[in-house]
Amino acid sequence: MLIVGERINTSRKVKGESVIENAVVNRDAEFVKDLAKKQFEAGATYIDINCGTLISGEPEAMEWLTKVVMEAVDAPISFDTPNGAALSLALAAYDPSKGQPLINSITAESERYNNILPLVLQYKAKIIALAMDDTGIQSDPGKRLSVARKLINDLTAAGVAASDIYVDPLTFPIGTGSDVAVSMLDIIEKIRAEFPEAHIIAGLSNVSHGLPARKLLNQAMTVLCMGKGLDAGIVDPNDKYLMALIASTEALLGRDDYCMNYITLSREGKFEGI
Amino acid sequence: MLIVGERINTSRKVKGESVIENAVVNRDAEFVKDLAKKQFEAGATYIDINCGTLISGEPEAMEWLTKVVMEAVDAPISFDTPNGAALSLALAAYDPSKGQPLINSITAESERYNNILPLVLQYKAKIIALAMDDTGIQSDPGKRLSVARKLINDLTAAGVAASDIYVDPLTFPIGTGSDVAVSMLDIIEKIRAEFPEAHIIAGLSNVSHGLPARKLLNQAMTVLCMGKGLDAGIVDPNDKYLMALIASTEALLGRDDYCMNYITLSREGKFEGI
Repeated sequence: MLIVGERINTSRKVKGESVIENAVVNRDAEFVKDLAKKQFEAGATYIDINCGTLISGEPEAMEWLTKVVMEAVDAPISFDTPNGAALSLALAAYDPSKGQPLINSITAESERYNNILPLVLQYKAKIIALAMDDTGIQSDPGKRLSVARKLINDLTAAGVAASDIYVDPLTFPIGTGSDVAVSMLDIIEKIRAEFPEAHIIAGLSNVSHGLPARKLLNQAMTVLCMGKGLDAGIVDPNDKYLMALIASTEALLGRDDYCMNYITLSREGKFEGI
Repeated sequence: MLIVGERINTSRKVKGESVIENAVVNRDAEFVKDLAKKQFEAGATYIDINCGTLISGEPEAMEWLTKVVMEAVDAPISFDTPNGAALSLALAAYDPSKGQPLINSITAESERYNNILPLVLQYKAKIIALAMDDTGIQSDPGKRLSVARKLINDLTAAGVAASDIYVDPLTFPIGTGSDVAVSMLDIIEKIRAEFPEAHIIAGLSNVSHGLPARKLLNQAMTVLCMGKGLDAGIVDPNDKYLMALIASTEALLGRDDYCMNYITLSREGKFEGI
């Protein structure tokens, strides 16, 4: 499971305070480094950086975040912005010896697609492809599946390896309809069957929007999606219980020979207090 | 999800002590009633009773357990024994106004099948059908699937409604092979597709046998199996986290309109401390 740690995002609030946005605006490197380290130590494969709430100066802030995260951890970065200028500046500052960069994200919207694709090719990046196009986000799961198919086909035709594509079928809140999670599971199952080399990713916490005890729904949804073929997630790696369930699910799905990773995590105390 | 509460079982030990066996041998009704009540309050649909470790007197003990559990709670009973004499005595003592009895279990072993089937028919019971026959428990998942099919076909031909059959594909420990859980998920998916009216049940805790932090694997396996069509479980309903994940999964699988049950459980404090 590829884990994209989502915590360095200026839209995130802690107890109502925009602590991350403040840290970015004030160039508080230690605050950002601490977030990067904690996620890396908890098992994040990629550290996502997003400063999309900044009204101006997003490119410079992305460049700064890139440098700060590289100083903090030996992990590759997920560049989370639709802003081509911000992406260009950040990718130019990135040292690929940290690992293949991940661009988060492209869509089938014509302008965004045409802006982002050259950067994907130039930097040989992995790419998150959101199942939306110029008509917006379609609630009809068949339409989202079609957009996902089109993105995979277009990207591979443009020269992106299928194994570098991370399709995101987009998560709807279960509070908006009893069938939205089942539909998403169905999309995942179909993409997995049709494109065995492509990856499937999701930011699953949206599923619990507006409901109590959100982490329970997020955890159950993560396990359900993994059962259908999801192999990457944009998550909070410091949700210890979620990470433990992901490791358990990996073992159950036969992706952890002799449960060695599971047993190692247990010995390292990663399941303590659970 | 039908929840069969597994805690009244004389083979269970608490801190190495056979406290349940002792309670049954000493006819400690209050101890047993407390176990029944706690499971019922935690959401058990059925209360399982098993005193299979008793070397003699199992029939009388099953009869006593039946009466005690009926006094304790307004829930139907799952009669957990392969012993025809014990089943007969217990079922005769059972008041069907508590709900349709559940016999746990029949197999395709000739003698057991022929002993148990008449009781299923006589008491119009629900029946757990374990996927094993006179050749024993087959590790080959294709063979277990064949036995499961045969049991459903034979039982329905004998007059048992498909909706009263709970097939148990049998859970193997993930420590014995990386593919055993995937095979079980595959069996569940196939039975669900072939027999939409039949139910699928499992005692999933065996999956974690011999591994640390067992409840994590049990929880993840429960959610994965539900995703493939499992709709009943033999579980410890006093594992609060497991029950919360089951409720979450039910909501995600579209079996909880408007998440009303999920929201109610949250309001009742069932997710507190999680």
